[in-house]
Amino acid sequence: MRKKPAIHLQDTFLAPRQELGRSVTIPASLARCEETGRLAAFKLNWKPGDPNAPHIYWDSDVAKVLEGMARASALFGDETLESRLDELVELVLSAQQKDGYLNTHFTVVEPENRWKNLFDWHELYCAGHLIEAAVARFEASGKRDFLDAMCRYADLIWKEFGPSGRKGYPGHEELELALVKLYRATGTDRYLELAKLFIDRRGTEPNYFLSEDSPDLARRDLENRQAHRPVRDQHEATGHAVRAVYLYSGMADVAYETGDRVLMERCEELFDDLTGKKMYITGGIGCRLPGEGLGAAYELPLNRAYAESCAAMGLVQFAVRMLKYTGKMKYADVAERLICNGAISGLSLSGDRFFYANPHSCSREFRAIAHLCRTRQPWHTTSCCPTSYCRFLPQLGDFCYRAEKGCLHVDIPASARIETPDFSVSVVSGWPWIGNARVTVEKGTCELKIRIPDWCGEDFRFSLPGTVSGRCWSPEKALGEGEILELDFGLRAELIFPDCRIPSTRGMAAIRRGPLIYCVESPDCTDFAPGEIRLPENIRFSETEKPDLPAGTVALRGAALIEEKKDALYSCGKPEYREAEITAIPYALWQNRGDAEMELFFPLIR
Amino acid sequence: MRKKPAIHLQDTFLAPRQELGRSVTIPASLARCEETGRLAAFKLNWKPGDPNAPHIYWDSDVAKVLEGMARASALFGDETLESRLDELVELVLSAQQKDGYLNTHFTVVEPENRWKNLFDWHELYCAGHLIEAAVARFEASGKRDFLDAMCRYADLIWKEFGPSGRKGYPGHEELELALVKLYRATGTDRYLELAKLFIDRRGTEPNYFLSEDSPDLARRDLENRQAHRPVRDQHEATGHAVRAVYLYSGMADVAYETGDRVLMERCEELFDDLTGKKMYITGGIGCRLPGEGLGAAYELPLNRAYAESCAAMGLVQFAVRMLKYTGKMKYADVAERLICNGAISGLSLSGDRFFYANPHSCSREFRAIAHLCRTRQPWHTTSCCPTSYCRFLPQLGDFCYRAEKGCLHVDIPASARIETPDFSVSVVSGWPWIGNARVTVEKGTCELKIRIPDWCGEDFRFSLPGTVSGRCWSPEKALGEGEILELDFGLRAELIFPDCRIPSTRGMAAIRRGPLIYCVESPDCTDFAPGEIRLPENIRFSETEKPDLPAGTVALRGAALIEEKKDALYSCGKPEYREAEITAIPYALWQNRGDAEMELFFPLIR
Repeated sequence: MRKKPAIHLQDTFLAPRQELGRSVTIPASLARCEETGRLAAFKLNWKPGDPNAPHIYWDSDVAKVLEGMARASALFGDETLESRLDELVELVLSAQQKDGYLNTHFTVVEPENRWKNLFDWHELYCAGHLIEAAVARFEASGKRDFLDAMCRYADLIWKEFGPSGRKGYPGHEELELALVKLYRATGTDRYLELAKLFIDRRGTEPNYFLSEDSPDLARRDLENRQAHRPVRDQHEATGHAVRAVYLYSGMADVAYETGDRVLMERCEELFDDLTGKKMYITGGIGCRLPGEGLGAAYELPLNRAYAESCAAMGLVQFAVRMLKYTGKMKYADVAERLICNGAISGLSLSGDRFFYANPHSCSREFRAIAHLCRTRQPWHTTSCCPTSYCRFLPQLGDFCYRAEKGCLHVDIPASARIETPDFSVSVVSGWPWIGNARVTVEKGTCELKIRIPDWCGEDFRFSLPGTVSGRCWSPEKALGEGEILELDFGLRAELIFPDCRIPSTRGMAAIRRGPLIYCVESPDCTDFAPGEIRLPENIRFSETEKPDLPAGTVALRGAALIEEKKDALYSCGKPEYREAEITAIPYALWQNRGDAEMELFFPLIR
Repeated sequence: MRKKPAIHLQDTFLAPRQELGRSVTIPASLARCEETGRLAAFKLNWKPGDPNAPHIYWDSDVAKVLEGMARASALFGDETLESRLDELVELVLSAQQKDGYLNTHFTVVEPENRWKNLFDWHELYCAGHLIEAAVARFEASGKRDFLDAMCRYADLIWKEFGPSGRKGYPGHEELELALVKLYRATGTDRYLELAKLFIDRRGTEPNYFLSEDSPDLARRDLENRQAHRPVRDQHEATGHAVRAVYLYSGMADVAYETGDRVLMERCEELFDDLTGKKMYITGGIGCRLPGEGLGAAYELPLNRAYAESCAAMGLVQFAVRMLKYTGKMKYADVAERLICNGAISGLSLSGDRFFYANPHSCSREFRAIAHLCRTRQPWHTTSCCPTSYCRFLPQLGDFCYRAEKGCLHVDIPASARIETPDFSVSVVSGWPWIGNARVTVEKGTCELKIRIPDWCGEDFRFSLPGTVSGRCWSPEKALGEGEILELDFGLRAELIFPDCRIPSTRGMAAIRRGPLIYCVESPDCTDFAPGEIRLPENIRFSETEKPDLPAGTVALRGAALIEEKKDALYSCGKPEYREAEITAIPYALWQNRGDAEMELFFPLIR
């Protein structure tokens, strides 16, 4: 096993979240898995007539927590966590059948329906998450127990759905990318081949999903599953948001491993459509509750924003893959946008409360609407989002830095120590609050590839001579031990203007400072609601601290206008305004100080 | 039978629609009722196993067309229409059972379920519409066939649900107001008593709807049916929009007839909540697709506006009742707003195509969203809206003028001839395009009560001395034969500003001219989309004709700004604008020149 580089974040924004993941999010999710019967399900002692039958997607929840435990125990050297993981792996593997099959629901609840309904029943999805967990455990600890067991499971799936098997493929994509991970971990070609097969089959005629024995065939929404046409003929990102980005991630993996340029071009095209027409300013995607779908171009409602946390984390996965495979910095821009805003917003500062949907506006009057503007919940019946954070948080360092042999990619300059067999580097920066950073090579020699973030525009400086290519800066020569690079990315509070084709934000502006999108939340408002705020075009912001937010947080103050309420819903009296100072905080931190109203976009007053 | 006053509209806006109702809308709806089996259902020859079983609300569709035929045949003296009505009444009454019962679905499809599910099955709702049709026929022609039959039906309902019967009441309100009409037509007290009983029972404990034998009790949304608490404890307008305004109309009728001041106060309060917090600028109500509901205060999305045509027509019914019962002019303001905008918008200029939902914004990108921005349809499976127009159009004159003994109320000064036994009056005006009118008493003597519309503010003039009380103007003395009153209401194109608490229209303005709300539709746009238009606060409009719209239509031209599209969804470059002339047309006339994009609110540029 190749030793993974160790990336230890030390910044004030992500590192505390990562620590919270280990100490709170993972233990809390584990406790919920225990309380709800998700863990006990692996004992396979549920019998017809018993309450609380294992659900079709329970296994995936447990798998995602296990993946998080593997990653976090390695990152923090947490032996308690690792020994708990050892026990849980034993429990999970005890449910594996002789033929390699591992699914609690289809083993005890409806064994007769194994592989019967790939469209709806999440069977291959659960397999994918188990495989991801097994690979993470292997990479973190070198332990092969889970990995070997999952190879047996993958071999069974190969027998069932491989080249000589049935022509099925996952109804909820996930197994594709997991199989590529398994291929990389084991070197076994057929796992890559199976991933490619699933991708190549998807949406081809005759459509497999219309051949299943199910009474609902006529109602099946193939586009929601990205199965309405072959993936190589898909030019617009459509359907279920989480499924879409999981599929595209698998497509990118297969394209990269097989050198399939057409497939990689398709991934680039889908990414551009997704982020150029269907993405919130926070990076959130999937605007619609019905079908948890991506919606039409420019369909980005604010208070009705669905913007599921899992979809945001899934888009980070897709973006960092595309970054690695193409080297284009725009992918890191999107990843950073999510990491600072729409992906992290779903997790409370306490680490144990979650948004499933992430509203982008929240008025008092709308609080009653189902699924919208809800307070953060300690768990969800469909608990994909909490368990996604368990595995997302330990990866934050990997989203900031990529170490290759002799070269360090600084995609996001969060304070960190990066240790590889070739070199050790420390980065000390004020990111995301301050734009400068000092990169010190503490051991060995190291080339640097530093992303120039989208948010600094042309305002960047480096202390060493170097060259820029495609928003990526490299020094003229590698840095040796003790050498230091200072860099500075311009960072100021400014207004951001959405394209006029987005109906929900016409004539409005948002507030950005560096990578962070800001919002105004009711705890910071005195005698007005956030929805009454209007932004003068020439507003100037000053920076301020907020004692009720984490240390280091930069809040913004500025003189805005408050529109006066009227007696009539509609009237010919021009709007009247009074001046008021507003305080804006990072969107990622909202709804952490009680049940709040919040706005992110404000009408602009020229 | 008291002879009803004859009100013949002669204006260019409503009168052509009314004629179209007689010549196109009613015949087209009748043809659809025939094609779909709605008429044949009354032959009661459907048998289990046959296709196309009579649906639970089919009878109401037929009843509403019959009501329209009765009203239109009287209004136009159309004997062909009346003799067709005679045949249809015979057909309908042939389905009446010996005990008085008349419902095609529950006679042939599931006779065992009669009265079993009042919450969902529209049985009493259908009865209400049949009674309304019977009363309309009686009032129009004096023919008692239908009326007498419906008395027998009402007597059966009295036996089943009267003071000694079961404690049920309509799941879809409508019968309440119909029973008051039947009481007024026949003088039979028990019909009023039954209406009062239904209203008094509604929402009381133990809740009748939770006592029905149905598997869905736990999921029943009582608030959607206005049955979550007694109506006298309801202070906010909630639930299904059409049901709500039908209920409130019945409540107002009962309150008026029984002198119940508390109930009338409740009607005033509900009206104020509905129109002060939950009404579109067009008068449309019921913003939500789910449950066809009224939504929360200020929840008035534009492109997702549901704003069902039936709800708009239902609110007219409620408003004209409140106008009559209280004499307050604000009720006529709302009725006129609907008649000029949100109620008439659902009917095509061809008279045979309909909107079920009335979008208040329509962008190309959103056309794919189910139920939204659809083109007008010739019919709907749930065809309440087309058939509502059949009965709505012949009543337009009654919504403009109310003739009492020796007194004429001019609520809306559309050109018309008003004939009563006491007097004849002609009104010649440019309404809704021009603000002046000439009222001539042609026969007899006549007091006048003239509403000063909300849209003219304090800009009104009358040629005779008179007094104003509560926006109602009266001349000092009654006008005799040959006497003339000239009046002028100030009417200009202007911007209207929504209250800042409505999230969907923050920072935006709409265009109004007199009673008409204007929109911009893509057929009038050259190289920009309506959604890219921004309105300078000081915009001036000039009036213009549109050859592709009905003669007399006043369109508006003005110099607006077009926001330039950008390459990025979100960017720090300030919005850039270019000047362009825009043409605005009345919202009521949109989507009559092909499939169009449309906007009604535009961001304001100060």
